[in-house]
Amino acid sequence: MLKLYLMPGSCALASHISLREAGADFEVNVVDFMAGEQRTPEYRAVNPKGRVPALVTERGVLTETPAILLYVAQAYPDARLAPLEDPFELASLQAFTNYLCATVHVAHAHSRRGERWADDESAIEAMKRKAPGNMADCFQLIEDEFFEGPWVMGEQFTVADPYLFTITRWLKFHQIDSARYPAVHDHLGRMGERPAVRAALEVESAAA
Amino acid sequence: MLKLYLMPGSCALASHISLREAGADFEVNVVDFMAGEQRTPEYRAVNPKGRVPALVTERGVLTETPAILLYVAQAYPDARLAPLEDPFELASLQAFTNYLCATVHVAHAHSRRGERWADDESAIEAMKRKAPGNMADCFQLIEDEFFEGPWVMGEQFTVADPYLFTITRWLKFHQIDSARYPAVHDHLGRMGERPAVRAALEVESAAA
Repeated sequence: MLKLYLMPGSCALASHISLREAGADFEVNVVDFMAGEQRTPEYRAVNPKGRVPALVTERGVLTETPAILLYVAQAYPDARLAPLEDPFELASLQAFTNYLCATVHVAHAHSRRGERWADDESAIEAMKRKAPGNMADCFQLIEDEFFEGPWVMGEQFTVADPYLFTITRWLKFHQIDSARYPAVHDHLGRMGERPAVRAALEVESAAA
Repeated sequence: MLKLYLMPGSCALASHISLREAGADFEVNVVDFMAGEQRTPEYRAVNPKGRVPALVTERGVLTETPAILLYVAQAYPDARLAPLEDPFELASLQAFTNYLCATVHVAHAHSRRGERWADDESAIEAMKRKAPGNMADCFQLIEDEFFEGPWVMGEQFTVADPYLFTITRWLKFHQIDSARYPAVHDHLGRMGERPAVRAALEVESAAA
């Protein structure tokens, strides 16, 4: 059986929801970040990066949200969670998930994990000050340019949707009201009504 | 015909080499970053992010290196640049390219583009100081855990190889000798002998 390592509320929620949308048989393993479990030798044996998510399959371990999402879509083709038959559309989907991972998540992380990129307390504070503006710029670009509607990629619900949902929920940490981005805000609401999303949130909040 | 927008020496080199390895018919468009061309309305009409690479296809524009590399591998299947038939292996390849994009490239960018994440000059200097250590940590992990050999993913040359080659070349900006990572260093040398790599470097250095 698949095993998903996650921290509640982290970006791993995107993989968690996608596995449920796919109808996959999997178990959840919570990594206790407050206790520093992600840095233990036991967890590093699963994921040497010391991060979540990590998806343990019978073939080996997968990391990085865009890669896990592509795997889920391909391993459960009947759930139709990605345009698998169309190289251009599939690459467009990867471009979106990759933007969330390498730009938007990174912008967010500067408000909470600045110690990754500087040692000085004042530098970490300077990063915190700039993070909300960067998040706002990213979401404006998503709203204006990338979000097709009604789902991220258009008519077809894909693994990009749980990922956008996951990161949109982080806007509140930056005191940004998602209503500033009407299409994204509407998406947040509709995502919250899906049974797979409700089930994932319930499991994660019970574990938090 | 495909059109690749690049800045010489940037991460777009990975897409550039991969297109040549695939035998694709494409033209190169240099974006003049020194002149701020990436921020002009003309270029933003191509890529609203104001970054490179951007690959213009007859279907639309693709951005984000891991997405462009997946597209090249899928659009030119005869070149066998990715394990397209195996969802686990393909996701493993995406996990590697995604790590280069979202962690290693980001670590590098803190030494050269710190103004993205903080406004204070002293904070930008603090990021510069920490960047070489982060790059060294990333490459140690690649050397010890991710690089299979002789190519990134093992016996099969894939689009992950031009991408690793591209980022390994940046170690010198951090005063890090790639010889500290023997497998990665050997890979750098063997990549440099490939005709597609030589051709791409020649075109980019003539345009620089």
